[in-house]
Amino acid sequence: MKNRIIAKYLIETAHPVEKAVAVLAGEQSSGTFVKVPGETAELTEKYGAKVESIEILGESTTPYLNDSKPPKGVAQAIFQKARIEISWNYDNVGANLPTLMATVAGNLFELSQFSGLKLLDIELPQTYKAHYSGPKFSIEGTQKLAGVHQRPIIGTIIKPSVGLSPEQNAEQVKTLIEGGVDFIKDDELMADPPHSPFEKRVQLAMYQINKYADATGKKVMYAFNLSGDLDDMKRRHDIVLKNEGTCIMMSLNWVGISAVHQICQFTQLPVHGHRNGWGMFYRPELMGMSFPVYKKIFSLAGIDHLHTNGLRNKFCESDESVLNSIRACQSEAGGSYKVMPVISSGQWADQAADTYAKVGNADLMYLCGGGITAHPDGIKAGVESIRIAWEEGMKGNQLQDIAHKYPVIQKALAFYGK
Amino acid sequence: MKNRIIAKYLIETAHPVEKAVAVLAGEQSSGTFVKVPGETAELTEKYGAKVESIEILGESTTPYLNDSKPPKGVAQAIFQKARIEISWNYDNVGANLPTLMATVAGNLFELSQFSGLKLLDIELPQTYKAHYSGPKFSIEGTQKLAGVHQRPIIGTIIKPSVGLSPEQNAEQVKTLIEGGVDFIKDDELMADPPHSPFEKRVQLAMYQINKYADATGKKVMYAFNLSGDLDDMKRRHDIVLKNEGTCIMMSLNWVGISAVHQICQFTQLPVHGHRNGWGMFYRPELMGMSFPVYKKIFSLAGIDHLHTNGLRNKFCESDESVLNSIRACQSEAGGSYKVMPVISSGQWADQAADTYAKVGNADLMYLCGGGITAHPDGIKAGVESIRIAWEEGMKGNQLQDIAHKYPVIQKALAFYGK
Repeated sequence: MKNRIIAKYLIETAHPVEKAVAVLAGEQSSGTFVKVPGETAELTEKYGAKVESIEILGESTTPYLNDSKPPKGVAQAIFQKARIEISWNYDNVGANLPTLMATVAGNLFELSQFSGLKLLDIELPQTYKAHYSGPKFSIEGTQKLAGVHQRPIIGTIIKPSVGLSPEQNAEQVKTLIEGGVDFIKDDELMADPPHSPFEKRVQLAMYQINKYADATGKKVMYAFNLSGDLDDMKRRHDIVLKNEGTCIMMSLNWVGISAVHQICQFTQLPVHGHRNGWGMFYRPELMGMSFPVYKKIFSLAGIDHLHTNGLRNKFCESDESVLNSIRACQSEAGGSYKVMPVISSGQWADQAADTYAKVGNADLMYLCGGGITAHPDGIKAGVESIRIAWEEGMKGNQLQDIAHKYPVIQKALAFYGK
Repeated sequence: MKNRIIAKYLIETAHPVEKAVAVLAGEQSSGTFVKVPGETAELTEKYGAKVESIEILGESTTPYLNDSKPPKGVAQAIFQKARIEISWNYDNVGANLPTLMATVAGNLFELSQFSGLKLLDIELPQTYKAHYSGPKFSIEGTQKLAGVHQRPIIGTIIKPSVGLSPEQNAEQVKTLIEGGVDFIKDDELMADPPHSPFEKRVQLAMYQINKYADATGKKVMYAFNLSGDLDDMKRRHDIVLKNEGTCIMMSLNWVGISAVHQICQFTQLPVHGHRNGWGMFYRPELMGMSFPVYKKIFSLAGIDHLHTNGLRNKFCESDESVLNSIRACQSEAGGSYKVMPVISSGQWADQAADTYAKVGNADLMYLCGGGITAHPDGIKAGVESIRIAWEEGMKGNQLQDIAHKYPVIQKALAFYGK
């Protein structure tokens, strides 16, 4: 559909589905609760949202959320589930990410007709990419900058997440880079707190990284979490740049779309997008939104990396959902940009082979916290176990089959696999 | 608790509650899925999150969300609900709204121990207000600027929400101000689209508003929706200022905390905070967050007005929830600022008396879309019906009791009350 914005939803309603969906389309374009002067047929034709399709999926007598308002006078409400598609004229919105979200994910979630409503996906006209230039590095640019090709960028998170002084942090950085990681990130809990001032943390960490790079030619990428007020983020960005850092990180949901976009425009470094808080958006089956929407919005805003969880993670997310997210990151579908998927959460050598088998490539970051640092033989062995697991996994070999060849894998299996 | 950040949650878990809550506290401070070097007792004592209280509320065999992971080997999981309180050392975070959110509302929502988790409230040390100066106008400043005292600011939303040209928009503004409204706002769907360029819309609307103000001394406040990319928002802000506008509006969830804060710092005008999309955050009983958290965060970011829905609204929100939101707006509790509550959604003369009776004051905005513009005798009669309903409502009189005295009330009752 030329120059139209499309959104797909999963809905549940006790009202006639067509009527409920018409209310949604009205509310999100020209509607109010009574017809008002000026709402002409011509205006509605041009700017009214159009219901493109309705696919009924099934029904139940139990609503997903119990606060909707079924039709009056119905003794036993029947709640129907449906997948629907709505479209809007691009001219309703223009190229404007926050107002796009107000349109496809605005007041519709509280409409009393719906006992459940989830935004599954969006498709945007090419005018969005024409306005939003997207990631400056994305997958290839990051691989080039990190000097890692044909395999995942292996990384870790500084742990404990909070409490280390800049000096202790730098000590850990030294150990991690000597251990052979490609990538290190701050925890999302750590930005610029009194006990670990950002500038000092960057200076001391980059001293270790630069020293190692000078000696070996290997420059480890460190994503410094500069999340905060906008002017502070710009100041922190410049500190990273001055100290020759090569990556910055933001908490996407809490920095927010407009400031993320501003920093992405402003920076000369890849932007590591952290999705903490995302659980509340995606976890309810019939409320909130799905990952492809999120990825499309933030890739247009210009981030380069985006967290996806990993297989057999410590959270609630299923492997199927994780794989959909990884694939969404690696795709330009729906008028968006590719970003580097960042695998994490309870990852160790274990998930490498399966991740490769399911994803079909190694264009990703593979982050292990305890999966590296808690290895019984230390960090170097931890990194080695991940590297070997991926090398062998990319040949189709599982850990059990290779453990006899590699003590670090054997130890990892014995420790993490118990 | 001196200099500690406190968060209150409603949780549900099939694990021993104390253990599950300890995981949450660990994850949000010093934890990973296995103990790592550097996680010393001293560090944990200082920077570990503390479980302040656990109040068990009840149990069920059916989980709220069905994707959590009950303890292994348990035949029939029992899901316990509890209200819990966690605290953090201020030094973990510092005064940093996005990182505060990463701490109290970050990765915890997907922890596999929880079949439900909602952030109910937060309390912040005074250091937050010392850093974040809050709203420049808030309730009193807005009343003064709008020239409205001892009664609500009566307003309306331009409808249809989208599709009007700047000329048509200005025509409606003229009718509305002649009708006697105090306040007009753009719909959240309308920012700076091709069919209604922002600058033109502001110029033509402000021409009407300024002309009327020159003639009568009454200057209607218009909240222009400048939501979008940050540089665009600044440019749009200056357009409003140049045309002598007195209010700007943003879609809070989609502009995001850091850019909202930046615009609030930058502006000389009251900021009208629109919460579209909020439904997905608050609607699930056991996922997401509650309004007091939201209000605290955005009041610190500096907004002046915040939408709350109204009594008997067209959405799913209960009157009790609406009243809690209005009260939260009018309070400084928990280290935050007062903001002007904005009542809207399906409002007409009907809800005035009850709103006053329950809230106990008229320090609010009362917005009616169709409730003004669809009045059978026209907009002027619509505004008059609201004004009278509030005047009489503040004396304790319901519409039924006064309808015989006022034709506009009689007509409103007959039309909207059917």
